[in-house]
Amino acid sequence: MFEFHITATEGRARCGIFSTPHGDLKTPLFAPVGTQATVKALTPDQLESLGATLILANTYHLYLRPGDEVVAELRGLHRFMAWPHPILTDSGGFQVFSLAQTRQVDDDGVTFKSHIDGSTHRFTPEKSIRIQENLGADIIMAFDECADPYDRPYLERAVERTHRWAERCLAAKTRTDQALFGIVQGGIYPDLREASAHFIASLPFPGIAIGGLSVGETKEEMLATLDLTVPLLPEGKPRYLMGVGTPEDLIEGIRRGVDIFDCVLPTRLARHRAAFSPQGRLNMMNARFARDERPIDETCDCYTCRHFSRAYIRHLINAREFLAHTLLSIHNLRALVRLVEEIRAMIIEGTFEQNVPTLLARWAGNAAREEK
Amino acid sequence: MFEFHITATEGRARCGIFSTPHGDLKTPLFAPVGTQATVKALTPDQLESLGATLILANTYHLYLRPGDEVVAELRGLHRFMAWPHPILTDSGGFQVFSLAQTRQVDDDGVTFKSHIDGSTHRFTPEKSIRIQENLGADIIMAFDECADPYDRPYLERAVERTHRWAERCLAAKTRTDQALFGIVQGGIYPDLREASAHFIASLPFPGIAIGGLSVGETKEEMLATLDLTVPLLPEGKPRYLMGVGTPEDLIEGIRRGVDIFDCVLPTRLARHRAAFSPQGRLNMMNARFARDERPIDETCDCYTCRHFSRAYIRHLINAREFLAHTLLSIHNLRALVRLVEEIRAMIIEGTFEQNVPTLLARWAGNAAREEK
Repeated sequence: MFEFHITATEGRARCGIFSTPHGDLKTPLFAPVGTQATVKALTPDQLESLGATLILANTYHLYLRPGDEVVAELRGLHRFMAWPHPILTDSGGFQVFSLAQTRQVDDDGVTFKSHIDGSTHRFTPEKSIRIQENLGADIIMAFDECADPYDRPYLERAVERTHRWAERCLAAKTRTDQALFGIVQGGIYPDLREASAHFIASLPFPGIAIGGLSVGETKEEMLATLDLTVPLLPEGKPRYLMGVGTPEDLIEGIRRGVDIFDCVLPTRLARHRAAFSPQGRLNMMNARFARDERPIDETCDCYTCRHFSRAYIRHLINAREFLAHTLLSIHNLRALVRLVEEIRAMIIEGTFEQNVPTLLARWAGNAAREEK
Repeated sequence: MFEFHITATEGRARCGIFSTPHGDLKTPLFAPVGTQATVKALTPDQLESLGATLILANTYHLYLRPGDEVVAELRGLHRFMAWPHPILTDSGGFQVFSLAQTRQVDDDGVTFKSHIDGSTHRFTPEKSIRIQENLGADIIMAFDECADPYDRPYLERAVERTHRWAERCLAAKTRTDQALFGIVQGGIYPDLREASAHFIASLPFPGIAIGGLSVGETKEEMLATLDLTVPLLPEGKPRYLMGVGTPEDLIEGIRRGVDIFDCVLPTRLARHRAAFSPQGRLNMMNARFARDERPIDETCDCYTCRHFSRAYIRHLINAREFLAHTLLSIHNLRALVRLVEEIRAMIIEGTFEQNVPTLLARWAGNAAREEK
């Protein structure tokens, strides 16, 4: 269980297979986010059809609602959300630091108020592991502190705490059918990142995540951090870049040796009526689509693009129909899953690096904030 | 095209096959309602999987948004909504009389204001047919006036107008690949219903609908009206009871010789978080489902019941997740489609009538307004 075999490499990019109790994961891969044990507006069948293999769920949300003990009583997350394939849960740390109200951090853990009802809760490394063991994902994450990437004094303390918490998570873990990944922190500071990478790499984690990116730093800073960090990580363990990203981020991350990505962007864009396309991010409410018989992306093989016109999707949005969310989520998720599938095939053929300029050009318009 | 073959009968109940340009329809059947060219929260794939064969779409809604001419330009409703099977459009009459604001009826037609933006529009029989020809459904409906079922003086005028409009619809129709159904009106008054049935039956419609029911009259009045009306209709044409109904209504309607039903109830209940079940209508928000591992209905073969617990569905509702609508809609629609499939098999075996008490008892709790 949890063996990682690298099957092809090209430069720092690599393809691998990570074995989990719910099946083998081919890397690189993009994992859709199912915050509340559901990838918004999609059934598990639809997720399978669009090529999803690993789904992420949020410990913070599921702890608050419906409660990790309820999920355990219902025989775990796989059964609860009817996803028989691998699942990853985060540690709850990121949401505690981004969503919860009036949190207080100390060396032992974090006390916070629920964003739902204001009730007070406390997470510690041990508590996070217990919750994640109740949820029962295949991959679970060490409890870490995600700090402002530019606040050096705070980051120094946060990195130190993250390291102590990593050790405590390893000690607290009891299930053998879950892979616990450590998390490298350190903001944008090379020396902090380097120290963190060395420390986390020295612990017996079967996989390592790079956290604290895509949280406000520039794209250049993110890529420089990857350039520095990834070479310090063991070759033989999967590397997971948390909360990233855009099509360009996936291309640039895989080039730098990242294996696993997750991001809410595709489903969040869907709720904002936007679609990834080679013409840039499309605002599907735009009146110019009212009679446009073309699919969102003529090169896309997703269910949405094989069946529906831009005009129909715009109609659904105008008419405030749920189906718009579903169809746009299918398309946006498939766009990223397919991009990563294509890159995987290129790495196996040894043609990825020569295709990078084409891939970047194709997806260039999808990182910008502006919608077309 | 539009041949109707009766393949089995039991008492007044019958099984048949109605041929349309988009495939044969086995009757009796229950048609899900796709008001705005989408059955709310479901993809065409999901509709196929739950056994839907005929989908209804609303002329009034599609005329206003996106516009019937837009749909025609996009090559018709089948392609627009990606439903390659038969579609039925209503005439717009019912919505004009129930939804539109400040309408004025005269013998030529109806002037009304859009419920969306208050703009003024006019429907006549000719206009309704032109819109329905633009939409391009397989079965289209005569433009009729649906009046208060107890207002006899108004009903007398409305029935007379409905008859004149039926003749004008037949005259206005130009497409040969659409079956135009006439509609019997007359409220709860036997003499009006009888006159209307005779008149509509005398016209060359390939199918006949019974309108103006399930609009405020009692269940007994509805069944008495069916008892009176159906025997006056030609044996060899399909009979469509519009806007009906509950599981019990389907059982009672089929017993009385009805072939086709449609109703928004299953999808509307889904939006109100309620589910059909042999234990009665379930309010899925109920706290008693919080740890309930059972499916909504242990005897149901739908995607929802095969994969998800009541606890999960309650969680989705609590967490305000779209997927709750989708899963409940699948279940509620499948419940009615499956009920009608079961009755069809019973009619073929000649065992329907003996099973009626069991069927009625099984679904008894699902007509009541109260939810459990």
